[in-house]
Amino acid sequence: MSDKRPMMRALAGETLPVPPVWMMRQAGRYLPEYRATRARAGSFLDLCYTPELAAEVTLQPIRRFGFDAAILFADILLVPHALGAELAFVEGEGPRLSTVTGPGDLARLRPAEAVHETLAPVYETVRALRAALPPEVPLIGFAGAPWTVATYMIAGRGTPDQAPARALLYRDPATFDALIGRITEATIAYLLAQVEAGAEIVKLFDSWAGALPGPLFARYAIAPARRIAAALHAAHPRLPVIGFPRGAGAGYAAFAAEAGVQAVALDTSVVPEWAAAELQPRLCVQGNLDPLLLVAGGTALDAATRACVRAFAGGPHVFNLGHGITPEADPANVDRMLRAIRG
Amino acid sequence: MSDKRPMMRALAGETLPVPPVWMMRQAGRYLPEYRATRARAGSFLDLCYTPELAAEVTLQPIRRFGFDAAILFADILLVPHALGAELAFVEGEGPRLSTVTGPGDLARLRPAEAVHETLAPVYETVRALRAALPPEVPLIGFAGAPWTVATYMIAGRGTPDQAPARALLYRDPATFDALIGRITEATIAYLLAQVEAGAEIVKLFDSWAGALPGPLFARYAIAPARRIAAALHAAHPRLPVIGFPRGAGAGYAAFAAEAGVQAVALDTSVVPEWAAAELQPRLCVQGNLDPLLLVAGGTALDAATRACVRAFAGGPHVFNLGHGITPEADPANVDRMLRAIRG
Repeated sequence: MSDKRPMMRALAGETLPVPPVWMMRQAGRYLPEYRATRARAGSFLDLCYTPELAAEVTLQPIRRFGFDAAILFADILLVPHALGAELAFVEGEGPRLSTVTGPGDLARLRPAEAVHETLAPVYETVRALRAALPPEVPLIGFAGAPWTVATYMIAGRGTPDQAPARALLYRDPATFDALIGRITEATIAYLLAQVEAGAEIVKLFDSWAGALPGPLFARYAIAPARRIAAALHAAHPRLPVIGFPRGAGAGYAAFAAEAGVQAVALDTSVVPEWAAAELQPRLCVQGNLDPLLLVAGGTALDAATRACVRAFAGGPHVFNLGHGITPEADPANVDRMLRAIRG
Repeated sequence: MSDKRPMMRALAGETLPVPPVWMMRQAGRYLPEYRATRARAGSFLDLCYTPELAAEVTLQPIRRFGFDAAILFADILLVPHALGAELAFVEGEGPRLSTVTGPGDLARLRPAEAVHETLAPVYETVRALRAALPPEVPLIGFAGAPWTVATYMIAGRGTPDQAPARALLYRDPATFDALIGRITEATIAYLLAQVEAGAEIVKLFDSWAGALPGPLFARYAIAPARRIAAALHAAHPRLPVIGFPRGAGAGYAAFAAEAGVQAVALDTSVVPEWAAAELQPRLCVQGNLDPLLLVAGGTALDAATRACVRAFAGGPHVFNLGHGITPEADPANVDRMLRAIRG
């Protein structure tokens, strides 16, 4: 029996009169109710690992805006944490991790199958959400893609171009490949457990795909995504997988053709007409409004929202932003965006 | 009579057995002789505006490496400076400019044709270089593309995603468009004067093209480049123009088809096989070795250099990096790269 929910229909390849909509970072600092819950948690990691609070912030934007999908509240760096990396989120500075820069660091990581010990509270959050969410709202589980996760594990932080990861790749490809392999296995285990706990869609965030040199894109962006999607589909053949190779540029076409995903999330820089012509005939696209428009608001927001809907009206489309909503965004502008989409 | 120099032949669309080669930022801090000359100048701006010193640093990499082209030593922010913006380069922090955030700031800028007053020393550098360069080495003149220059003029500095420029564009499109127009006119005047002083090739650096939202790429990356190329060709029909819409992704194809340039410079993230198939049949491509390989060196450098040459061997190609060489690069690795290219 086919699933009637707009999000599931679009991901299955159906062209809908009104696209389903959700937003990257929809549970976030732009919402006063998020900031209130965040204040009750100790650290950001505590928020991720406390099922009651993580479920609460996941539900907040669903209650306020009636989005067509919820996305598990968590962080892509929980996988390195579960593999044994030290991890802290420094207020105003971002994440800090212990680094992997050679075979010794790699040897000290835990095996992939050991991640469940640390990640069990996340699965608990997923179960709580399946019970609490309205049945018409599917839950998206997610993980970071191996290359992106590796860039943080190698540099120990975000950097402007994730050069430390490329440096390791050139200097010690054996260690680099073993790290990618370990993360890939851990990610499969993590996502399978999310699905078994109740996630109905999975998204793979390769936020730093654009920092991959072109000749390495197939090996480190497409191949790991394909391996993960194949492992998920082996257990759950109909599970929709959304790939987000952010900054892939023309590489989006090869990714869409080869990664085995059911949808690609488009970053802000993708030209909608190109994606409609080159990607949408093959699979569902998701995106790609400039998040800054939710700060700017006004008629610029209305016009850009309608233009995005129109550009993708000829094929399967999930409306979203091209990147996460920012803390400076005005929640009233989200309402305005929804009116422009839903009329 | 056709020009026999490899750089000019490749830019004219000829496929050569060995590609001509130069490097972005080839006159730069990785060279001890650059650092010595830099120490003789007061500020970085003094270096740009002192013809004797600017010509000297332009010549240094030609003497040391025998590159197939020289590129004028200057900075893309000289145009805003010449338009009346205050400009300083803060050691270790990058450029700082007075900002343009509304019609009042715009009104205080000088007219486009007034830029020559400030930029005259640059033309003097070009003349000195034409006299000093071996005749087999053509000189590349350059400017920043209007969008990229505007991002700095609006933010007053480099930012991670040049959001201030997008914010102005959404909030006050009239001021934004007028600023783009002013920069475009000034850039045409500047580049025409460089060509008249002796530059034989022109390159337009749109370093922040990747920060343009997809729906605005045609309007703010392609259209200004087309206007500039058309104005240059009206006066100099055979002048080769190289466009560098860095981060354009799939937008490279539309740029190559519509901007009226003779070559496109490819950033590091472009997949060579895609560019060879989609761009090279139409025009010369330039690029795109990861500059980090000139830090890493070794067999990774050899292999990647040869792979780049091979990927583009079927059409017109100028070997270059995908971004500027970094201060940490080892000059010995540049020699190694040249051996891998030239055999």
